[in-house]
Amino acid sequence: MVMCNLERMEDKIKTFARFGDTGKGGITRFSLSEEAQAARKEFIRRMEAIGATVVTDDMANMYATIPGTEDFPAIFSGSHMDSVRQGGNYDGILGVLTAMEVAETIVTEKLPHKHPITVVVWTNEEGARFEPAMMSSGVICGKFNKADMLASVAKDIPGYTFGDALEASGFKGDIANRVSPEKCKALVELHIEQGPVLEAEKIDIGIVEGVCGMINYEFTLIGQAGHAGTTPMKYRKDALYAAAKVIQYLHDELDQLDGKLVYTTGKISCHPNIHTIIPDEVKFTLDARHQDPAVISQVLKIIEKLPSEVEKCALSYAKAWSRNTVTFTPGLVDLVEKSAKEYGYSNRRIYSGPGHDAQFMIDMIPATMIFVPSVDGHSHCELEYTPTVNCYMGANVLLRTILYIDEQ
Amino acid sequence: MVMCNLERMEDKIKTFARFGDTGKGGITRFSLSEEAQAARKEFIRRMEAIGATVVTDDMANMYATIPGTEDFPAIFSGSHMDSVRQGGNYDGILGVLTAMEVAETIVTEKLPHKHPITVVVWTNEEGARFEPAMMSSGVICGKFNKADMLASVAKDIPGYTFGDALEASGFKGDIANRVSPEKCKALVELHIEQGPVLEAEKIDIGIVEGVCGMINYEFTLIGQAGHAGTTPMKYRKDALYAAAKVIQYLHDELDQLDGKLVYTTGKISCHPNIHTIIPDEVKFTLDARHQDPAVISQVLKIIEKLPSEVEKCALSYAKAWSRNTVTFTPGLVDLVEKSAKEYGYSNRRIYSGPGHDAQFMIDMIPATMIFVPSVDGHSHCELEYTPTVNCYMGANVLLRTILYIDEQ
Repeated sequence: MVMCNLERMEDKIKTFARFGDTGKGGITRFSLSEEAQAARKEFIRRMEAIGATVVTDDMANMYATIPGTEDFPAIFSGSHMDSVRQGGNYDGILGVLTAMEVAETIVTEKLPHKHPITVVVWTNEEGARFEPAMMSSGVICGKFNKADMLASVAKDIPGYTFGDALEASGFKGDIANRVSPEKCKALVELHIEQGPVLEAEKIDIGIVEGVCGMINYEFTLIGQAGHAGTTPMKYRKDALYAAAKVIQYLHDELDQLDGKLVYTTGKISCHPNIHTIIPDEVKFTLDARHQDPAVISQVLKIIEKLPSEVEKCALSYAKAWSRNTVTFTPGLVDLVEKSAKEYGYSNRRIYSGPGHDAQFMIDMIPATMIFVPSVDGHSHCELEYTPTVNCYMGANVLLRTILYIDEQ
Repeated sequence: MVMCNLERMEDKIKTFARFGDTGKGGITRFSLSEEAQAARKEFIRRMEAIGATVVTDDMANMYATIPGTEDFPAIFSGSHMDSVRQGGNYDGILGVLTAMEVAETIVTEKLPHKHPITVVVWTNEEGARFEPAMMSSGVICGKFNKADMLASVAKDIPGYTFGDALEASGFKGDIANRVSPEKCKALVELHIEQGPVLEAEKIDIGIVEGVCGMINYEFTLIGQAGHAGTTPMKYRKDALYAAAKVIQYLHDELDQLDGKLVYTTGKISCHPNIHTIIPDEVKFTLDARHQDPAVISQVLKIIEKLPSEVEKCALSYAKAWSRNTVTFTPGLVDLVEKSAKEYGYSNRRIYSGPGHDAQFMIDMIPATMIFVPSVDGHSHCELEYTPTVNCYMGANVLLRTILYIDEQ
């Protein structure tokens, strides 16, 4: 059995946790920041040390390639190095570190492979400082317009654009270095689950079949303001009470649908939001996700069945955005499963709720993902944690999968 | 029948609407502001013109007194001149203007009266710039500590206190001028209803029996944050969903109580309030008012019956504040009713939901209030409106009531 190295895995995690260390167990490492630049330099240093050639493209995506015995397209693996503010040491970076560990194992153990192996680092996946998320994979896949992206302004410095940060970083490279279908045979991205399912079910490896389709709606209730002490109940049009009823209704109805549906009423605003005034306008959001578009359609039907008036308040809604379900390449998904089984690791098929760079890349090249557990489901916070042994198991499955792809 | 003068009433309303005119139908006239000082000067000018003697006390409350034929305690009437930001032309000021009109009618018509008549203007009833509301009547009645009130800081100027504004205003007078039980036989305050009941029921005059007791509670639901896309429904502790259920429960239960109960869930906060995160903390308020303390006790019982856990979220609550029911002097209430009937004005007994200076004064001296209708129930906004004829009817009832008190 080919195996990665547990100690090396741990060393990688600890080393990269220093770049942007918050001192409270996590990191703040915005894309192209000084901390991110330091992490990129360490990445280049380590990859060159094992004989890789590192190039960057015009969006500062980095590609570290070790040659294969044949002049074939490369097998890609990697993720992103940037984090949200006070994020954790696993989201994104673990996909880079496991790909590095796989490359290092292949080189160190002299494992034969016909295809070149490329470790990829995507720029600005989080969109924490410069929106949107998955910016650079999005540009490469044509989801986003490059000029718009370069003009994206930093949340913390008025007028300072992503383009400015890109120029200043020293990591802007040649557009010719972009990944393309000709250069890439397949992409496998390892990521933490960012949810509690794998841990709760004591599963080592999530075999990611795709990324759930989602819809996000905003609901608005319009009532009438009035003084809490003077307006008899029968004259009231209380928008918060009406909103509570609609939230209750949505939960009751959506709970009847497929058990894999996840939906969230996460954001609410209330006007004027004063304890002695009857609320006259309440808005709240509904986010709903499922791998099967038919279930999302059922969610829509429930929304469309809502009356235009609830408790004498006018009810309206509008779609904020939506995303279609993304299905990863079935042949690759099967290889991940075959690999996990070979090691005897417990595994299950799973759909990703959050978005990942791989969901954009699938439009261009065959792609899939591997999930490892997130303790207590924490992510995007300093509590984010995956035991090193789980990272190591994920790296082994990634290694085995890449070698299987190499054989094809 | 003794009658006030409709044209004079209209002139008073129009004149005082200029002090702090927003140009959009309302006023912003914070207590002791330049605009309020101008209104005070106009008040003094007009009262002195009809032979009144005007004094101010140490909280800048103003007392304009026309002498009676006997050396008796005075009969007081009045209200406040200050407004909330972008408030209306009736809340408070109408109580001053109708008392002025009554005094002017008594003087002009040479109506005999044994008791002096004092028109009172309370300082800072709204508490819009310097908290709390009903500040100066509260100091006189011992509800508030004067030193604390002088130290109250303006919401718009750091470090600038009510004491500073008082000194700068030129209206600070002698503590010896404060109203006292020895100086005052009775107080009758006319005010707009600030609610829709009188207008909806086509009632001219509200005979105010008292001010409703109230309680204000804050409820807190503690759940667990999680990603909208990764946390299966069965693992969720959604604090907003739980809050919606509690709001629904409270409305369902409170609707079973006496029909005069008014209650409001007016304010809600949600953390982290992001559409893709399951809310982990939601707080909302409940304000409940009723004239009968037994009904308020029933509200408390409903609150106390709440479980400590709702939808796997911890539920707790805390009392923010409360106010006991205030009952106005029955003999005075009867005189208001007798007066309204004499003019043939439709009338009904009513409890005030909002607080008024008179509710503090009742601890020291006999007091009651007269309400006139608020169109559409609007108050504390520029839409606040009471037709001049209704103001005039209110002034007539106030005049007749004062003359009845004078006879006693």
